[in-house]
Amino acid sequence: MSNGDIFVGEVIGTAILILFGAGVCAAVTLRYSKARASGWVVISFGWGFGVLAGAYTAAPLSGGHLNPAVTLGIAVDTGEWDKVWVYVLGQFVGAMLGAVLCYLTYFAQFQANVRGTGTTEGTADEPVPTLGVFSTVPEIRNPVANLVTEIIATAALVLPILAFGLTEGLGESGTLVLIVSLLVVGIGLSLGGPTGYAINPTRDLGPRIVHTFLPIPNKGTSDWGYAWIPVAGPLIGGALAGLVYNAAF
Amino acid sequence: MSNGDIFVGEVIGTAILILFGAGVCAAVTLRYSKARASGWVVISFGWGFGVLAGAYTAAPLSGGHLNPAVTLGIAVDTGEWDKVWVYVLGQFVGAMLGAVLCYLTYFAQFQANVRGTGTTEGTADEPVPTLGVFSTVPEIRNPVANLVTEIIATAALVLPILAFGLTEGLGESGTLVLIVSLLVVGIGLSLGGPTGYAINPTRDLGPRIVHTFLPIPNKGTSDWGYAWIPVAGPLIGGALAGLVYNAAF
Amino acid sequence: MSNGDIFVGEVIGTAILILFGAGVCAAVTLRYSKARASGWVVISFGWGFGVLAGAYTAAPLSGGHLNPAVTLGIAVDTGEWDKVWVYVLGQFVGAMLGAVLCYLTYFAQFQANVRGTGTTEGTADEPVPTLGVFSTVPEIRNPVANLVTEIIATAALVLPILAFGLTEGLGESGTLVLIVSLLVVGIGLSLGGPTGYAINPTRDLGPRIVHTFLPIPNKGTSDWGYAWIPVAGPLIGGALAGLVYNAAF
Amino acid sequence: MSNGDIFVGEVIGTAILILFGAGVCAAVTLRYSKARASGWVVISFGWGFGVLAGAYTAAPLSGGHLNPAVTLGIAVDTGEWDKVWVYVLGQFVGAMLGAVLCYLTYFAQFQANVRGTGTTEGTADEPVPTLGVFSTVPEIRNPVANLVTEIIATAALVLPILAFGLTEGLGESGTLVLIVSLLVVGIGLSLGGPTGYAINPTRDLGPRIVHTFLPIPNKGTSDWGYAWIPVAGPLIGGALAGLVYNAAF
Repeated sequence: MSNGDIFVGEVIGTAILILFGAGVCAAVTLRYSKARASGWVVISFGWGFGVLAGAYTAAPLSGGHLNPAVTLGIAVDTGEWDKVWVYVLGQFVGAMLGAVLCYLTYFAQFQANVRGTGTTEGTADEPVPTLGVFSTVPEIRNPVANLVTEIIATAALVLPILAFGLTEGLGESGTLVLIVSLLVVGIGLSLGGPTGYAINPTRDLGPRIVHTFLPIPNKGTSDWGYAWIPVAGPLIGGALAGLVYNAAF
Repeated sequence: MSNGDIFVGEVIGTAILILFGAGVCAAVTLRYSKARASGWVVISFGWGFGVLAGAYTAAPLSGGHLNPAVTLGIAVDTGEWDKVWVYVLGQFVGAMLGAVLCYLTYFAQFQANVRGTGTTEGTADEPVPTLGVFSTVPEIRNPVANLVTEIIATAALVLPILAFGLTEGLGESGTLVLIVSLLVVGIGLSLGGPTGYAINPTRDLGPRIVHTFLPIPNKGTSDWGYAWIPVAGPLIGGALAGLVYNAAF
Repeated sequence: MSNGDIFVGEVIGTAILILFGAGVCAAVTLRYSKARASGWVVISFGWGFGVLAGAYTAAPLSGGHLNPAVTLGIAVDTGEWDKVWVYVLGQFVGAMLGAVLCYLTYFAQFQANVRGTGTTEGTADEPVPTLGVFSTVPEIRNPVANLVTEIIATAALVLPILAFGLTEGLGESGTLVLIVSLLVVGIGLSLGGPTGYAINPTRDLGPRIVHTFLPIPNKGTSDWGYAWIPVAGPLIGGALAGLVYNAAF
Repeated sequence: MSNGDIFVGEVIGTAILILFGAGVCAAVTLRYSKARASGWVVISFGWGFGVLAGAYTAAPLSGGHLNPAVTLGIAVDTGEWDKVWVYVLGQFVGAMLGAVLCYLTYFAQFQANVRGTGTTEGTADEPVPTLGVFSTVPEIRNPVANLVTEIIATAALVLPILAFGLTEGLGESGTLVLIVSLLVVGIGLSLGGPTGYAINPTRDLGPRIVHTFLPIPNKGTSDWGYAWIPVAGPLIGGALAGLVYNAAF
């Protein structure tokens, strides 16, 4: 695969992933959304099917990593590091693009995030914090615990991805990406409770930058003090998974 | 594929899609339905599995587009325009047929949409607006924002569909339609919040015509002032996806 | 396939189907169940994955029809009627066996269906009607409308099943039964609201007979006045689907 | 497969299974989790996708049994007993490892399981019992009924697993594990109501040992009086399934 194809594939794929992922967070948390308050099952399947949409689309161009933690885990496993920067650059650009697309999709909902302009009867009319649409926010702020959660959750993503390729027939039948997307649904359902499962540095950092600059009414903090955890945790977890994979398989 | 096969396939497939899609909206919103108020996850999976049912059924006859935005995206990509009218005609007829089948399936529920005839204790006894069973209704009425939402959501449907065919093994194993149907679930979960995701002109226009003429008690407005948006938005989004696909892949 | 294999396959497969299907209704409706009041999405996926479990298990022996409406639709399509009685007999025996297994699985819950023996704080202590665990109960009792609902919902099951076999690769990759089970999830989500979607004569009749004789405390009526509709509707719908399939494909 | 590969595969696979399974129970039941009170559908899919993650990862090394009841059912069917101890040992070590990983993932949530330290407004501030994160707790304590429930639910797991291998194409396309994981979702939805569906002796016993020794605040009882049922029930159910399979197929 050429650098150009890899870059374009990762930009498009990651943009789709973040459009779906940030989108489902907007759908569940913003007022005047039909999916308002529809719960964790919607969040988890929304992110998982974002992986499905983005990774199948990117697959023919770049293989569809969409996540520096996955790219890192593969590099640790294979020892091939020369394309890593292209992957990560594409993922970063794509994540920011996806966050902007989510903003445009929910533009009217973001504009309505003000006090007392409710058009639906009976809804609360206080603005809601909007960072959770773009980036992760821990339930309990505890840097060590939050970091450990992200490390374990990311290793639980990358180790299976590395191993799935060994299952006979899975790649040939084209269902590999489907399985990975259901794995991501599972990680959300099971391991997302404490931190909101970044498990992907660009998924968190790119949209956080976008959130910082977007003119959203009452958008609240972009919480840069937390931003290093969903970058460091997934990178450590991805590298760890590569090492475990090399040792065990 | 002959014109006859295409027409019959698209009629049957789109009718099944709308039967399931309008059906799940009826199931969740009408009184005296076992699925009453069962939430957005039910809506999204209901529409997605409607795609699964309709597209697998239509596939051997017409390939199962079921959506003029998909047909348009494929035409923009391939440059073959001569069968487009057969596809769209079949989709339109099928969408109206499906809406009528949904009406018949929920006939008793529609007839009970009157004040004070509740047979279940504790249910509200005001009629509910019925247009949402047939066609989309935006949460916030803002033509530009609604149009942008439909353009992005439809491009997020059509671009992946065009790309999915490039994944090795996916077509041969027959799981391509399954992936598309889960993509549609994802679009519903993530991008359906603002407008209810038409992402398909005939899906919205056909049932809106049927709603206009059906003798449903207290059916409420058919809201023709909004009707152009779920037609124009998906067509623009589908064409845009075809152009992006041609440029990137 | 020998008559013995067909019979054994249909008994085992239909027993598993009804164990899961009646089981999920018990899980959602009976007191002192962990899944109490968990909603329509649980009901629909429970029945669908019951099809997955039962039909994949029965497939090597009998092909896994598990439903006289499916057997009838296939017979109308192929013109082969000589094995129909073996299929239906196995389905009938299996459905009753599955209902008994569900009763045993939820034995303690059924025994606790009495006034004022709640072991969980805050739960209502009135007995609940138990027929809904075993057989279908319409939301609005209207024989013609109920019959039409069952006809349409069953045709929406059988016509796709007949057509799915034409999709290249679906059978060879072994995913055909998965698709059918997701189709059944979709029918539940979308078309189950009015009558609880029997879409299978033995699924309703077998367990209704079992319900009539089981010594469940406060079990309520077995409602034999309604019993003909979930038999006649699915048979008409299955035959109709066979005719449409022959005409269109 | 060498004993070493089997052991490593079962340790890793079962650890992932329990990380996801115990994780989703933590996610739904602990305070300060984003998935708090998100219901039975989340529990059931979380466990099922834990099977998907663990079994696909273990498959190339050990075949991915992850459950002594499955190993036993296969041994009864094939008559090959010499590797059983390696499988079960790996499953046991893996289950304990997974429980520890879940504890680390939800460390801050477990530490916050005390009276009156709520950081989220409006949440209850009484500690919750924590055994349900690690092991099963019946809704109604009735040893015979609980045992019967576990026997039936485990037979409904192992009999289909044995039969699934006979479906043409399912193994070759690599989708066999996906089907088994959806089967586990179905067992949870349909048969998990009375006892919380251990259906796996090490899944219950390993984490119960871990729970006994972990320093969780207000962790409540480890309930050793019940511990034999989720061991005996699944073993009986698995053996029964092997016998039925040998007789019927």
